[in-house]
Amino acid sequence: MKIIDMSDKNLAVVLVSGGLDSCVTMAMAMEKHSVALLHVSYGQRTQTREYNSFRAITRFYNIPETRILALELDLLRKIGGSSLTDRNIPVDKGDTNAAGIPTSYVPFRNTHLLSVAVSWAETINANSIYIGAVQQDSPDYPDCRPEYYEAYNKLVEVGTKPSTNIEVITPLINMRRSDIVKKGMEIGAPLQLSWSCYERNDKACGQCQSCRLRLKSFEAAGFKDKIDYI
Amino acid sequence: MKIIDMSDKNLAVVLVSGGLDSCVTMAMAMEKHSVALLHVSYGQRTQTREYNSFRAITRFYNIPETRILALELDLLRKIGGSSLTDRNIPVDKGDTNAAGIPTSYVPFRNTHLLSVAVSWAETINANSIYIGAVQQDSPDYPDCRPEYYEAYNKLVEVGTKPSTNIEVITPLINMRRSDIVKKGMEIGAPLQLSWSCYERNDKACGQCQSCRLRLKSFEAAGFKDKIDYI
Repeated sequence: MKIIDMSDKNLAVVLVSGGLDSCVTMAMAMEKHSVALLHVSYGQRTQTREYNSFRAITRFYNIPETRILALELDLLRKIGGSSLTDRNIPVDKGDTNAAGIPTSYVPFRNTHLLSVAVSWAETINANSIYIGAVQQDSPDYPDCRPEYYEAYNKLVEVGTKPSTNIEVITPLINMRRSDIVKKGMEIGAPLQLSWSCYERNDKACGQCQSCRLRLKSFEAAGFKDKIDYI
Repeated sequence: MKIIDMSDKNLAVVLVSGGLDSCVTMAMAMEKHSVALLHVSYGQRTQTREYNSFRAITRFYNIPETRILALELDLLRKIGGSSLTDRNIPVDKGDTNAAGIPTSYVPFRNTHLLSVAVSWAETINANSIYIGAVQQDSPDYPDCRPEYYEAYNKLVEVGTKPSTNIEVITPLINMRRSDIVKKGMEIGAPLQLSWSCYERNDKACGQCQSCRLRLKSFEAAGFKDKIDYI
């Protein structure tokens, strides 16, 4: 367990995957809080690349090691059911507006990630948890909608010690993807260190659903995406 | 991933720790459902003993291996904050009616366990999840109260695919501990194979909070507890 000043009333746990959204979320959280950073790998194809991006972002901000917790959650891979964690299911290509749940949906994933954050927050006395969920992903991902976070906050209220007062905060939930890029650029978030590709670890494929969303967002925001594409 | 007949509309995932409550819960679930059994170790002191009890119960009922999933969730141990998972925090002794949260409280534990069950249920198309939570443990454990399960079911409703319809069922939630023992005896649950001690792996200590609750429950029910005590 990491040593953290537990008397810090302004401490927030931030879930940082290493992706663009969590990079901007972290920068936004740092404007208001001292932060403790949580990175959870769950057996996804690009987990090493995402971890490296996460570490690059922590170095960019000079976050002390005592404020960083990186964990592996291998049970989602064992349970399967998603192209992100099961090599036998192909990653979706093509139209990012296609209807329905994409194969990259990991059953109940955000609940697992948030619950790790809540357990850690309860242990280190953090009062806030930041996660970079974006509603624009909805209805493809049920756990990226405001209703989900309302329900989750209710669960935290009744499911933790009465003495704790933890709230999950989703600063990007109602933002358009292009505005997330603009916001990140405005507050100096190191977007060039973030990683979005679902498929590759070296250079971004540019073809998977996540790459397409990223490219569209930069284009709409009027900025150049500085990561390497194949 | 286990192979399960996904057209079985009556499939229930049962969380089976190997303890008395989950043993009775499983027997009750089997009266109404075909079952898939989930056991999650989380780095607790007695995890090997609990796993062995779980396996003994599955053998007692001749549950096929394809219906059994046993996983390790080591992040709760890494996060710490509980005497069950941190060897530096002593297990509570003495009065089981003492006020406040016992040291054995594992921050947000049931949320982690249930979320594994939901991810599995969503993958194998199970419609019900059974967990042996008992309100009589409340208010010591926030995640053993009906309000918690109401909030959790709301989360499942909004956080899973629209095509799924998963409900968490808590058949023991309003039962007295003595009635749980009576019910288990009545329906032939193998209570002699279950394990409750928080402290030891060979014989039950008889002194920890969990042993005391168990002994009191058998006594009040008018049955002899057949497990070995030191």
